[in-house]
Amino acid sequence: MPKLNEHYQNLKESYLFSDIAKRVNAFTAAHPDKKIIRMGIGDVTLPLMPEVVSALHGAIDEMANAASFHGYGPEQGYDFLRGAIQGYYAGHGVSLDPDEIFVSDGAKSDVGNITDLFDVGNVVLIPDPVYPVYVDTNVMDGREVLYLNANAENGFLPMPNPDIHADLIYLCSPNNPTGAVYTLDQLKAWVAYALEHKAVILFDAAYEAFIGDDSLPRSIFAVEGAKKCAIEFCSLSKTAGFTGTRCAYTVVPRELTMRASDGETLSLNRMWLRRQTTKFNGVSYIIQRGAAAVFSDEGVRQSREMVGYYKANARLIADTLSELGIRYFGGIHSPYIWMECPNGMKSWEFFDYLLENAAVVGTPGAGFGVNGEGYFRLTGFSSREQTAEAMERFKAILK
Amino acid sequence: MPKLNEHYQNLKESYLFSDIAKRVNAFTAAHPDKKIIRMGIGDVTLPLMPEVVSALHGAIDEMANAASFHGYGPEQGYDFLRGAIQGYYAGHGVSLDPDEIFVSDGAKSDVGNITDLFDVGNVVLIPDPVYPVYVDTNVMDGREVLYLNANAENGFLPMPNPDIHADLIYLCSPNNPTGAVYTLDQLKAWVAYALEHKAVILFDAAYEAFIGDDSLPRSIFAVEGAKKCAIEFCSLSKTAGFTGTRCAYTVVPRELTMRASDGETLSLNRMWLRRQTTKFNGVSYIIQRGAAAVFSDEGVRQSREMVGYYKANARLIADTLSELGIRYFGGIHSPYIWMECPNGMKSWEFFDYLLENAAVVGTPGAGFGVNGEGYFRLTGFSSREQTAEAMERFKAILK
Repeated sequence: MPKLNEHYQNLKESYLFSDIAKRVNAFTAAHPDKKIIRMGIGDVTLPLMPEVVSALHGAIDEMANAASFHGYGPEQGYDFLRGAIQGYYAGHGVSLDPDEIFVSDGAKSDVGNITDLFDVGNVVLIPDPVYPVYVDTNVMDGREVLYLNANAENGFLPMPNPDIHADLIYLCSPNNPTGAVYTLDQLKAWVAYALEHKAVILFDAAYEAFIGDDSLPRSIFAVEGAKKCAIEFCSLSKTAGFTGTRCAYTVVPRELTMRASDGETLSLNRMWLRRQTTKFNGVSYIIQRGAAAVFSDEGVRQSREMVGYYKANARLIADTLSELGIRYFGGIHSPYIWMECPNGMKSWEFFDYLLENAAVVGTPGAGFGVNGEGYFRLTGFSSREQTAEAMERFKAILK
Repeated sequence: MPKLNEHYQNLKESYLFSDIAKRVNAFTAAHPDKKIIRMGIGDVTLPLMPEVVSALHGAIDEMANAASFHGYGPEQGYDFLRGAIQGYYAGHGVSLDPDEIFVSDGAKSDVGNITDLFDVGNVVLIPDPVYPVYVDTNVMDGREVLYLNANAENGFLPMPNPDIHADLIYLCSPNNPTGAVYTLDQLKAWVAYALEHKAVILFDAAYEAFIGDDSLPRSIFAVEGAKKCAIEFCSLSKTAGFTGTRCAYTVVPRELTMRASDGETLSLNRMWLRRQTTKFNGVSYIIQRGAAAVFSDEGVRQSREMVGYYKANARLIADTLSELGIRYFGGIHSPYIWMECPNGMKSWEFFDYLLENAAVVGTPGAGFGVNGEGYFRLTGFSSREQTAEAMERFKAILK
């Protein structure tokens, strides 16, 4: 009988979103007349932008014709898309070689699969509160996880502790769920720590498009030396509303090498290439054409407009909370607003209070880790009208 | 410093296709006037069929409109597609629950990722010659691989040896590269062995659509008891020309359970669900709509026509080889023809002979494993005209 991977038995079942659904359903059954507004949603709502729609239709027409048909493509992505991504990075001052860029179907896939390259004996450092995939994928492999406290004292931007050694470090900026954004100096300190400890930073930049201040880093590679110690994950999910269309990319620098036990120098770029060519067959040609359109001049304009819409929603929430004297993090360079529950309420207590009194649904911070207790996540992904209406209801009950 | 996954150092570099390319390039440089015909191609060449093209365009129009836009979908696939696949299986007599069907971006991804569920201590049995992904993905994990000889004596359909124990068994039927197809009785023997040894069969059915004889099994689940010991991988790559469009599905039966060390019963269906929901975000909504169209009445008709075209090419090759008195396997219920190299030539010797004398390119069997030596793979994926011309050249030099 095969022995299964019994580390799966150590995974915690997450009931966060099913618990939310249960409470919302019970409320709806009791109050069929009340119009619920969902402000906890982590998914985009605006349709694909015209530049992408047109590229997708064009690619299908190519696939409908033998002369322009595409079969298997390069697993790591077509040159036209890798080149477009290279140009995008160059636009914010980061120089990459196309061979350092790997196109995939999702940042979640790459963040999950990257652990394939590391030994199970490595020590992993993960902030709390956190996107649960970082923890779960390491638990699946049986790796030891150390948590790093993110809290109001450090602005939910924890810094390295020189006395604690880690081999792998997960950082996410702009952060999900807190919306906090590391400054360049803060990332420099992380890169210095990683170089000192010969650690690898796994940097999740899925929300970089929400950064509106040129002094804030949109990529870990804005820091000198980061190419020797970091891998970056990015996605079109939030940049261009691709959550249902699926396209992402991961940067594994050529300079990122490690010494093996036998003294051989191993390149993580080459290992990831081998992993992807062996266990992946590339993203649909059609979708890659749609993705490339995001990086055209008109595509960049349209995606900025889309991101701007969500940011304006987030700003509306942030301004309302300021007006109400409620402390929050994020909401400026992020679609996420991480608010302190008012009057010392706990996360789920505030969830129930808000649902009962305002018919507004958010996400209890406690669902993202122990340091999330007493916090609540709101997002800018609803429509402007729904966001405005929800804020009126906030004012009515929290003034 | 993180220790890397040093099992990657045990991977063999495959030079098969780069060696082929080098020799072809050298020949072209020396003989710029000669028109090369590629008969080694493992990729489809016909364009997407009209039913799929129309569904893809329709899905993009849905995504271009806020009211019909789709964001994140279920990681394991939309109900409309899982239901369509369930209906397809029912059509060849296999009853599945939609929860047993997992939609993905490729059989290669699923075949590669499935090893996540198993302990590294398991013993793996893999036929030789073989699709290299089975071996490489296990070497990456550090699992022990036993090879199973497929050869002319067993018709390239090796059967279980009751004295050899394995925990995981890879089977592929219709086979890549040999084109050989297991009968129902042969698969029954494999299922009996797996149940006896409490082993799991990983069954690759990527070429099932090429089976034209109802008495031959298109699914391992045609065998009673298989749901207790098998996982099946299938794909639209060859069924509907999706190699560049990317959609596949994997069946993990609910009955497939194993006892953990602590006595708990683990369900592989639940473990795969957890793996996919943690490390995957589902296939593009657009692509899933295109995939569902393959299973409509008109889609089934069009895909049969497409598969029929490739099969007729394979038949033309098979008939030519019969006429020339050259022994071969496959070519009837498969796009692959696995021919003995004539006059006792070795695989690469015949490759060079064919290139030099007929300007035809195929794949040396030795590239698929030690038992491939002396064999040569041809495929039915070229155009009818190219296939016919290649066969005329065969007759001219091999008569």
